Amino acid sequence: MTNIKKPRGTLDILPAETRAWRYVEDMIRKEAAASGFEEIRFPTFESTELFDRGVGGTTDIVQKEMYTFTDRDGRSLSLRPEGTAGVARSVIENGLYAGAMPLKLYYLTNFFRYEKPQAGRSREFFQFGTELYGADGPEGDAEVITLADRVLRRLGLKSCALRINSIGCADCRPAYREALVEYFRAHEPELCPTCRERLETNPLRILDCKSPDCAAIAAGAPKTVEYLCGHCRDHFTRLQKLLDCCGIPFAVDPRIVRGLDYYTGTVFEFISEGIGAQGTVCGGGRYGGLLSELGGPDMSGVGFGMGLTRLLLAMQAEGALPALDGGPQVYLAPIGDDERGKAFALTAELRALGVRAETDLVGRSLKAQMKYADKLGAQNTIVLGTDELSAGECTLLHMATGEKKRIPLSAPSIAENL
Amino acid sequence: MTNIKKPRGTLDILPAETRAWRYVEDMIRKEAAASGFEEIRFPTFESTELFDRGVGGTTDIVQKEMYTFTDRDGRSLSLRPEGTAGVARSVIENGLYAGAMPLKLYYLTNFFRYEKPQAGRSREFFQFGTELYGADGPEGDAEVITLADRVLRRLGLKSCALRINSIGCADCRPAYREALVEYFRAHEPELCPTCRERLETNPLRILDCKSPDCAAIAAGAPKTVEYLCGHCRDHFTRLQKLLDCCGIPFAVDPRIVRGLDYYTGTVFEFISEGIGAQGTVCGGGRYGGLLSELGGPDMSGVGFGMGLTRLLLAMQAEGALPALDGGPQVYLAPIGDDERGKAFALTAELRALGVRAETDLVGRSLKAQMKYADKLGAQNTIVLGTDELSAGECTLLHMATGEKKRIPLSAPSIAENL
Repeated sequence: MTNIKKPRGTLDILPAETRAWRYVEDMIRKEAAASGFEEIRFPTFESTELFDRGVGGTTDIVQKEMYTFTDRDGRSLSLRPEGTAGVARSVIENGLYAGAMPLKLYYLTNFFRYEKPQAGRSREFFQFGTELYGADGPEGDAEVITLADRVLRRLGLKSCALRINSIGCADCRPAYREALVEYFRAHEPELCPTCRERLETNPLRILDCKSPDCAAIAAGAPKTVEYLCGHCRDHFTRLQKLLDCCGIPFAVDPRIVRGLDYYTGTVFEFISEGIGAQGTVCGGGRYGGLLSELGGPDMSGVGFGMGLTRLLLAMQAEGALPALDGGPQVYLAPIGDDERGKAFALTAELRALGVRAETDLVGRSLKAQMKYADKLGAQNTIVLGTDELSAGECTLLHMATGEKKRIPLSAPSIAENL
Repeated sequence: MTNIKKPRGTLDILPAETRAWRYVEDMIRKEAAASGFEEIRFPTFESTELFDRGVGGTTDIVQKEMYTFTDRDGRSLSLRPEGTAGVARSVIENGLYAGAMPLKLYYLTNFFRYEKPQAGRSREFFQFGTELYGADGPEGDAEVITLADRVLRRLGLKSCALRINSIGCADCRPAYREALVEYFRAHEPELCPTCRERLETNPLRILDCKSPDCAAIAAGAPKTVEYLCGHCRDHFTRLQKLLDCCGIPFAVDPRIVRGLDYYTGTVFEFISEGIGAQGTVCGGGRYGGLLSELGGPDMSGVGFGMGLTRLLLAMQAEGALPALDGGPQVYLAPIGDDERGKAFALTAELRALGVRAETDLVGRSLKAQMKYADKLGAQNTIVLGTDELSAGECTLLHMATGEKKRIPLSAPSIAENL
């Protein structure tokens, strides 16, 4: 009988790692709250039709990467491959657009895509994402970008560079697309096979192809920003002014186009230099038409997704993860069976006071207990024998310094002396 | 085109509700940390075989309630219906039993069962759970029970009553089972159809049947505790002593048997009086054989699951949910376009100082902004016009009292005066 392994591309996040995850998540929640973004939670699976309509039936995500299944009543369901569609569905179903607007939402949860697993990319992955509805101007864009920037800086990431671009709207995109196709058509034989296909289906995506040949050709391609209509140009200029106002450094990068069809106008990425090819720790932009496509009001949104695994990789690469101490503050070591009950009760009392306290659960000898306390990284130990119980006093031993202190044997007195 | 709804039995948890969820989750994490339980995270889906072997191929969960599907490479996967099997798999796969023992793990995550949705029961549901491995004595049982008790008390639940029982081990269960079958056989015609079946398959489960007729019959049934072997009796007596030591009130309840096959020895539930039939907010017990069944060492575990939806229902019923304030501490209202950039930048600075600050993102008039600030529940407002910008001073208006304060126009000065 072979042992069962976790499914390919999924993660076990072990005790040694969950502290770092919680550190990042707590920081994110704190910054989101300060910025007035409220958390929304939505189902792990939705009807497949939602992603078909909301992400796009022709995208790789929907065609190749979704976990789709039929439930016991014959409904086609899919594990969520991203958050924007589920949030939009929830906003409409619950009429959230009828409350105070703009609507500023965030989520911090898991998603699923059947992709080739590699460093920083797993089939079940974790994202912090925001969706801001009802602020069509550049202030909306700046609002989500400043939040992403603050989160990255708070987490100690110094090498994350913000790149922004505008890919225009329905008015300016056709002329740009034409110019782009004309340019790439002249280089068609040199493009990779995928990009030769993209020339027909989605020429914009050639701009962020990872093949060095395509990238070299793309470097000379016409830039979206040169084809923007008056409205899009004004929006993009004002966004840059707002970022300047807030002291957020950025570069305009014509290669930033994002992978999803629903983007329009502003797109942006934060790219970490330290973690290799999968360097985008945060990507987002403005999207129109999604709410109305799903039966809601005609209202544009702007948001981003930030991958937690890549965030943690970038933090490791920059040495930005602080020491996260979680070992017991005190270990109570009963000498014999008579003291075991007292040690157990005292431990419970200490915990009720918020102290990380630990005691013996398996009947170890005193020597074995001290070894165990050391293994746990206990900061202090107290030995409990009949003498201590009858005297109502005990000795608090500080493990690092060896310093000893005689104190009354009670939870409040121990807590006070730690 | 009809609007797409969330799948039946799933939950949207909206901004107005997520604050309460986070309040509960934060409290749980704090108490788990104080008790030295470390978080573990494991995949949302596992190979179906894991649940077949770890939960039991003959259980309702595995036979009727799992979301099972085939991935694009033909593997049979299932959404996790509970946490014990996934944790056990992870403990084995990652060799966690080779570290400091006992191993004290917790999880706070979602699970999936295709059941009939009703109040307090959804198809995607949320649990706080613990698994403690490597402490076979009653101290292990008491360790998880005291944690559950402390969490419930910390959350302000006063009506949650602890019921404990021992269902014995492989040594004492056969004799008890025989006595039980003999007793129920005499009442067979009065039992519900399901229980008549259970008489053959799992007579223990008749004891917690919800039908009033079965319950009346069960009240007179032989009790597990009367059939315990010496070892089980001693274990159970010592557990009760430990709970007494810790001042945790409990009742021995012979009807507590728990639904899953893998339990052995101690079983327990915390039952809330306030929320109707689905009153069990926490249930757990000791289980043997699971690790070795999955290819790991022969080591018993003890743990519990606590349902978050029921916890929140019980807190609502008892009025235990505190007011959770999240509105902005200050709203900055720019009068015209010239002040908009300054207000935006100042808001960002305030947020960087940890202040919940808000400003206009949509070009509202001053009057409309004040109405919006009120709608958001802003505690203070500051109007920013050309006068304020040139004087470098502003007026902080406290919304509840109408009190006004003239202060320097800078983020630190505003933060200080809130």
